[in-house]
Amino acid sequence: MTPAELHQDAIVIDGLVIAKWNRELFEDMRRGGLTAANCTVSVWEGFQATVDNIVRSNALMAESSDLVRPVRTAADITRAKEEGKTGIIYGFQNAHAFEDQIGYVEIFKKLGVGIVQMCYNTQNLVGTGCYERDGGLSGFGHEIVAEMNRVGIMCDLSHVGETTSREVIEASEKPVCYSHCLPSGLKEHPRNKSDAELKFIADHGGFVGVTMFTPFLRAGVDATVDDYVEAIEYVMNIVGEDAIGIGTDFTQGHDQAFFEWLTHDKGYARRLTRFGKIINPEGIRTIGEFGNLTEALSRRGFSEAQVRKIMGENWVRVLRDVWGE
Amino acid sequence: MTPAELHQDAIVIDGLVIAKWNRELFEDMRRGGLTAANCTVSVWEGFQATVDNIVRSNALMAESSDLVRPVRTAADITRAKEEGKTGIIYGFQNAHAFEDQIGYVEIFKKLGVGIVQMCYNTQNLVGTGCYERDGGLSGFGHEIVAEMNRVGIMCDLSHVGETTSREVIEASEKPVCYSHCLPSGLKEHPRNKSDAELKFIADHGGFVGVTMFTPFLRAGVDATVDDYVEAIEYVMNIVGEDAIGIGTDFTQGHDQAFFEWLTHDKGYARRLTRFGKIINPEGIRTIGEFGNLTEALSRRGFSEAQVRKIMGENWVRVLRDVWGE
Repeated sequence: MTPAELHQDAIVIDGLVIAKWNRELFEDMRRGGLTAANCTVSVWEGFQATVDNIVRSNALMAESSDLVRPVRTAADITRAKEEGKTGIIYGFQNAHAFEDQIGYVEIFKKLGVGIVQMCYNTQNLVGTGCYERDGGLSGFGHEIVAEMNRVGIMCDLSHVGETTSREVIEASEKPVCYSHCLPSGLKEHPRNKSDAELKFIADHGGFVGVTMFTPFLRAGVDATVDDYVEAIEYVMNIVGEDAIGIGTDFTQGHDQAFFEWLTHDKGYARRLTRFGKIINPEGIRTIGEFGNLTEALSRRGFSEAQVRKIMGENWVRVLRDVWGE
Repeated sequence: MTPAELHQDAIVIDGLVIAKWNRELFEDMRRGGLTAANCTVSVWEGFQATVDNIVRSNALMAESSDLVRPVRTAADITRAKEEGKTGIIYGFQNAHAFEDQIGYVEIFKKLGVGIVQMCYNTQNLVGTGCYERDGGLSGFGHEIVAEMNRVGIMCDLSHVGETTSREVIEASEKPVCYSHCLPSGLKEHPRNKSDAELKFIADHGGFVGVTMFTPFLRAGVDATVDDYVEAIEYVMNIVGEDAIGIGTDFTQGHDQAFFEWLTHDKGYARRLTRFGKIINPEGIRTIGEFGNLTEALSRRGFSEAQVRKIMGENWVRVLRDVWGE
């Protein structure tokens, strides 16, 4: 089986996409052979603005039902593969949308939200993000984790601080993930995870999606898809071949104003970081080039079984563990 | 001058009242000779529910304009004294009503809010309360303190955790307060402040209002107004006679459901504390008995000048410092 045939045959999951929602994106997802993707519908928004995002996203998906389908269960991912469509998982990058209401967790589950990052870069009612001093998981945060476990929403810790992350990993009775991270063993950065952090989540049944966001890659903006594969291999050597997957962090289609919004606390307050030039690794600059990743993994010498696990099978298994059948 | 004459002549400020808002309360405030009081209009409520509380409070005050008047400036307190009315200062016990919008600080200042406690018992976007582990003042919290300084809203730290309190005291360019607290030197309790904490706020130009809430008093529910005076004297010996005032925490008129709401995180989530029996010290069970406090202070041997400072003059000075003329 050639890498191209393997890519076409495999389940391909992208654990984090924050690209601009439109039909062009859905078309590019089909070009890239995506079976499913965790698509961000909330970052700094509160409850109602997040519901509004979901309403708009539902309408967009209805207009493009030839290309995409909603994903609520692991079986929906299998259906997407059979139908030749991309399954859309709704995800939050911030528990802020729950506001102060534990009951909103189940509301959003009913609206199709399957993965929620506990904090985005800064402190919220639940805990603290990775761009400021981290006081750990709050008492309310413990209640939110328990409720997410109960209703079946996966806890994501990618942008979460180290202490809060550790305490969520310990508190959760279901697997949690870094949906999109890179190892600080290759490059020191507040967003990257140390070997100890990667080992800790894996030792507690958690999961790691590897991102390719070039500001956090060793090679920076000059990176190629092979540099991305180097990071995947580095993480796999720590967490093992069953606890690893992809989480690209594709942002395509967004303008500078969007990145300004992302990089300021609450979307407007103090600046938290500057990304610098945003360009994806050569070979996988757009989501339509996803097939090149399967090719690069194969070229690196990963077995067909390993490539299938990394490209999507592992994500499907862990999502089934969290969501139930 | 007899203590009764002194009480009638003095400026009398209560730095914290969370009693049920109605005409009966306003009548009792007049009976107690209150010149002004910091009245809580937000605890667990968000922005809009807090505005609704203010709308209702404005209507109540309009109906009882023979008894009360709004206080926006220190001069309004003098006017209240001249008119023989009680001046009502709007205060929050939680910065939660600011939600994630720094701009809401000025909005609430325009609506008459003069004092805001940074956290109520638990973690919010700003910092952490005194009933859970405290990670300190967040980056957003630093921005909120600066904005409160700018528009002239006093930072209150009574229910705030030790680390967050220390960092607010250091960050604020205007005097901050514990509007209603007791010394842990007389009784250990998560809500009480250590000698070191009392000294720290005073050394940084801050202010301490002393409460009489019996669960936190050494004598507990058997306390009398003289036990309250003991606590005032204890605090004064640490902070000095110019940085001390009254903050009773009167809750009269409320039913058990209200206390259940107060003592659960967000008003409904996990229980944070149990007050047990709620009864004020004998001699000052209702706000109408306020005069007995002046009498007890005089009986204890405080000078007339000291009594005037403690009963209200100090509050007026520090509020002028924060609010401006």
